[in-house]
Amino acid sequence: MDLTKYPLIENISIAKLKQFDEEKLVEFSAEVRAFLTIELSTLGGHIGPNLGVVELTIALFRVFNSPKDSFFWDIGHQCYVQKIITGRADKFDTLRQYEGLSGFVKRQESEHDIWEAGHASTSLSGACGLSVQQHLKGLQNHIISIIGDGALSGGMALEALNHIGDLELPHIIILNDNNMSISRNVGALSKHINGLRINPKYVKVKKGTKLALSKIHLEKHLGGTIRNVKNMVKKMILKDDGHTFFETMNIEYLGPIDGHNLEQLEHALEHAKSRKRPILLHVLTIKGKGYMPAEHDDTGLWHGIGPYSYENGKKNRKKNRSLRQWSSVISETLERLAQKDDNIIAITPAMIKGSKLTFFAEKFPNRIFDVGIAEEHAMTFAAGSALNNGLRPFIAIYSTFLQRAYDQLLHDVARQNLHIIIGIDRCGFAGGDGETHHGIYDISLMRTIPNLTIMMGKDAVETQYLLYNAFYNYPQNRPYAIRYPRGYTDFEYVSSFLEIAHGSWEIVKLGTDVTILCFGSNVQMAEEIAATSAMQYVSIKIVNARFIKPFDEKMLHQIFQLDKKIITIEEGIRAGGFGSGILEFKSEHNYTTPVKILAIPDEYIEQGDNKILRKNAKIDENALYKAIMNSIL
Amino acid sequence: MDLTKYPLIENISIAKLKQFDEEKLVEFSAEVRAFLTIELSTLGGHIGPNLGVVELTIALFRVFNSPKDSFFWDIGHQCYVQKIITGRADKFDTLRQYEGLSGFVKRQESEHDIWEAGHASTSLSGACGLSVQQHLKGLQNHIISIIGDGALSGGMALEALNHIGDLELPHIIILNDNNMSISRNVGALSKHINGLRINPKYVKVKKGTKLALSKIHLEKHLGGTIRNVKNMVKKMILKDDGHTFFETMNIEYLGPIDGHNLEQLEHALEHAKSRKRPILLHVLTIKGKGYMPAEHDDTGLWHGIGPYSYENGKKNRKKNRSLRQWSSVISETLERLAQKDDNIIAITPAMIKGSKLTFFAEKFPNRIFDVGIAEEHAMTFAAGSALNNGLRPFIAIYSTFLQRAYDQLLHDVARQNLHIIIGIDRCGFAGGDGETHHGIYDISLMRTIPNLTIMMGKDAVETQYLLYNAFYNYPQNRPYAIRYPRGYTDFEYVSSFLEIAHGSWEIVKLGTDVTILCFGSNVQMAEEIAATSAMQYVSIKIVNARFIKPFDEKMLHQIFQLDKKIITIEEGIRAGGFGSGILEFKSEHNYTTPVKILAIPDEYIEQGDNKILRKNAKIDENALYKAIMNSIL
Repeated sequence: MDLTKYPLIENISIAKLKQFDEEKLVEFSAEVRAFLTIELSTLGGHIGPNLGVVELTIALFRVFNSPKDSFFWDIGHQCYVQKIITGRADKFDTLRQYEGLSGFVKRQESEHDIWEAGHASTSLSGACGLSVQQHLKGLQNHIISIIGDGALSGGMALEALNHIGDLELPHIIILNDNNMSISRNVGALSKHINGLRINPKYVKVKKGTKLALSKIHLEKHLGGTIRNVKNMVKKMILKDDGHTFFETMNIEYLGPIDGHNLEQLEHALEHAKSRKRPILLHVLTIKGKGYMPAEHDDTGLWHGIGPYSYENGKKNRKKNRSLRQWSSVISETLERLAQKDDNIIAITPAMIKGSKLTFFAEKFPNRIFDVGIAEEHAMTFAAGSALNNGLRPFIAIYSTFLQRAYDQLLHDVARQNLHIIIGIDRCGFAGGDGETHHGIYDISLMRTIPNLTIMMGKDAVETQYLLYNAFYNYPQNRPYAIRYPRGYTDFEYVSSFLEIAHGSWEIVKLGTDVTILCFGSNVQMAEEIAATSAMQYVSIKIVNARFIKPFDEKMLHQIFQLDKKIITIEEGIRAGGFGSGILEFKSEHNYTTPVKILAIPDEYIEQGDNKILRKNAKIDENALYKAIMNSIL
Repeated sequence: MDLTKYPLIENISIAKLKQFDEEKLVEFSAEVRAFLTIELSTLGGHIGPNLGVVELTIALFRVFNSPKDSFFWDIGHQCYVQKIITGRADKFDTLRQYEGLSGFVKRQESEHDIWEAGHASTSLSGACGLSVQQHLKGLQNHIISIIGDGALSGGMALEALNHIGDLELPHIIILNDNNMSISRNVGALSKHINGLRINPKYVKVKKGTKLALSKIHLEKHLGGTIRNVKNMVKKMILKDDGHTFFETMNIEYLGPIDGHNLEQLEHALEHAKSRKRPILLHVLTIKGKGYMPAEHDDTGLWHGIGPYSYENGKKNRKKNRSLRQWSSVISETLERLAQKDDNIIAITPAMIKGSKLTFFAEKFPNRIFDVGIAEEHAMTFAAGSALNNGLRPFIAIYSTFLQRAYDQLLHDVARQNLHIIIGIDRCGFAGGDGETHHGIYDISLMRTIPNLTIMMGKDAVETQYLLYNAFYNYPQNRPYAIRYPRGYTDFEYVSSFLEIAHGSWEIVKLGTDVTILCFGSNVQMAEEIAATSAMQYVSIKIVNARFIKPFDEKMLHQIFQLDKKIITIEEGIRAGGFGSGILEFKSEHNYTTPVKILAIPDEYIEQGDNKILRKNAKIDENALYKAIMNSIL
């Protein structure tokens, strides 16, 4: 892309950045903010988090020597400024697109990208591992992890702190405290950190975009040698009124520090550099800093946003009134049920907004539980609330994050025969979020769990029925998982909730040449293909296998006994997936009907438009069409 | 079993326990200790942990009203005293046996068993869920969780504390601090807790078994009303010299309390009862209390022990010099490699002893990393240490606990192409530990992970080769998992490490009627069956499928092209397992050779002798024999 409007960015290098004087730094920061907000308005992206770390990233690159010194960005969506500084600005017109620039830290893009993530709370563990490596090899390079206050609630981050404090190896932890994860933060730790924010010694964050650089003045005020400066800075900003959480973990605490004051940041980082042990810098930043719509957002809208208008900060998408996000289909149905049933509660690991539980939270403030980024606890907390069928917990969780709670579902929920309902959101490909976010493993994982029912409706109506049935019509001594994808669907409230027999499949279309077993939106895709003129001489049977587990064994026996060919299709991985389950059934009962499986191959799937990804994985219309044609040869 | 030797135990009830005077309580505690140490010497069990909680359990049942009030025992192996008090003493001769008394909390055994576990760190989340249930239903029953200082390092326990402190609902957390998990504890939090132990206000734990009950004296000293007593007790034992970890989490801290002083315990519990918010009682106990061999053990031997002699506390098993535990085969080979390679480090989540890493730790104290009960961190810590192929981490982890680190293996290790070696210990059935401990899910889980190699040697020799090859001969940009079972095997150091081609299977025996695909000890089992006279007219081919992933595709193509029948057998679940992978291959390449899968059905598998469990699951010799005979019909 054309960078001529951004002369400093166009020619930036780490060496130059280190040479910039105050004026140039102010200019560069302003350019970066303009670049992020103007150039990304057509594609969208993680605007808010990146506006919040402009000065922090600049300070890191000025104070440290990347890539010899290593930056571990937690989750990694706040790395845009790093990408700009390390010469990737010209690729931002491909951000989050197929074969384009990743929206996350990406090792193959740059040697400065050390540690990839996507899921939260991994940075401290990774950096801790590298600190041990450096220690054993006698290296003195600096290791810096940057973690948000939201991600800090994740269990593995806390496990890591416990180990880091124990090892006492040099490690600079930057707590990027914007008091939000995606939405507002929750949890006792967050309150504790809030308490630290209001330390009277903290120099308030200056309003406005102009940086309060007054280095000469400050040095005069502090006097003398570098050591003195450091000590003074330390005294100035070190909280001295008792133990912080971090100090009880044997990690030095320094803060709070104004995350938009470059000078204060650099001094603090210099001090941290001189410490030969774990130290946490509590840096206060403002998500969306410098761009009014983003800065004043406290709903989380600007955490990750689609295309928008730079002038007014409004989203560009035209709203289609008859369409709803799948998350809303679920949450609105849940609200409807909760209206009549005091025992329903909703649980989310920091995804109130993403899971569209905002209205539920407003209507039933006592029955919504946002536990923070803590999937493990969320699942077992649900288990506890359901003991003796006391409450009916609904836990909304993204497919990719459910991977964190596998053991809890197997060991705490399903094994104890507890009646909880899991809404598995964002099933299938995750578009621009890429390989860390695709919801394509959950079927294989969940098929291994005894007692668990796995469902997916073919449309919003059936999904409403299934959700209702899971709450009230199915055995109350087992858990139910109901899958739904990202994106939009037609939606209307059903007038009443029909019963769907537990474990029953539905024959959507009769046919004699080939039988397609599918679920979710693939049912409609199969119907559309069957209706094309190219298929007019092929007799296609379509089965809505809405229960991924347990199978409709009666129907499946009939299919294997009577039908000629079987094709299964799913937006999930092949290994151990739905199709694989069909093969297990076939083998167990010694059937010989050929089964063709369309599923995602055994490799990490990159970012890109879901249509492209489906095509590459050979699970799109074309692939199904070909499979049908091959089956009748 | 005959309880006449234990008159108080024989007739115990909760009501009676509540009426016991001091003398009777002393007597009862002594009986319980005698019962545990004498009667369990023939079967073994979790002796140490249970001796440590005799007074604590008695106090809980006296102060609270179980089952209206709920006890959440973390992990749940320290519930023997609860079982005795609630009328299950007569079943202890079946402890941990097939169809016998569970060694863990078991809901179907008693209404007092509220919360089952087996894996660590789940109690706080479960109890937190129940506290919400009670709150919404307006109930005032007490909720008490009892968690060891070891389990507290688990991420989900820390996530739960964060939520508990946020909710501020009544919840009594008892920190059962014996300064050990299974072996000695590690971590900064543990050090912090140690700091709390040495609070000068703490009344030292009295030596000996006689209880220091001096209620009248104490009440005189404290004076007045119950309220006053409570306040005094609180002042006496409340740590007042700064904030504890728990207080930064908004959880009241009370302690330390002598866990073997019934009176102090009961006063503290009464006080906790009166608080309408989360409160943590720091209770100091001595693992193995009252039985010298157990009390003086600091290796973890007495955490869970097999049959032993009551008189001298020595294990009954005769040692066979040529046999080694599988964990030792791995750890001794690792030591051998580490001797020549400074880059090898060993990582364990609190299982130094279980994984037989004690000697490694002695030889290479700088290269062993016990991260505490923290599987998630352990895995990602390994990832960090392997960055840029800097170190060669070996992480030993039990199959059942690997379930906690699935996402870390998928998201942090394999996706970043990092070269780490995972030793998956305790694969297959776990005998008396039962349904929470069987290592039967890992194959299905790990098959879903791209880039990961999964191996299992047919014997100790091949296992040594595979381990070596994973370190040095295979591609250095991917992780390797090497599986091994619980129990013993022949062991001899190999003189040199032979190369085994990556992904190669081995034909162990040629044959033309039926082909058996198997791995691990099943290879030998298949050979033995093939050698029986019953099989003299059956031509059996046996393939050692030592690579569970990736398959030896070249050989597998030949098998499907040339062989008549295929049988797969594995000590793992059917859904998505090894056999399922063979079916996927068959379907993908349109083969028609019949495949029979012997694997574990879709249900939770109870405790019992592995032989019985294998028989029930139809994966034993008989099942294989039958499958062979059926295949040639």
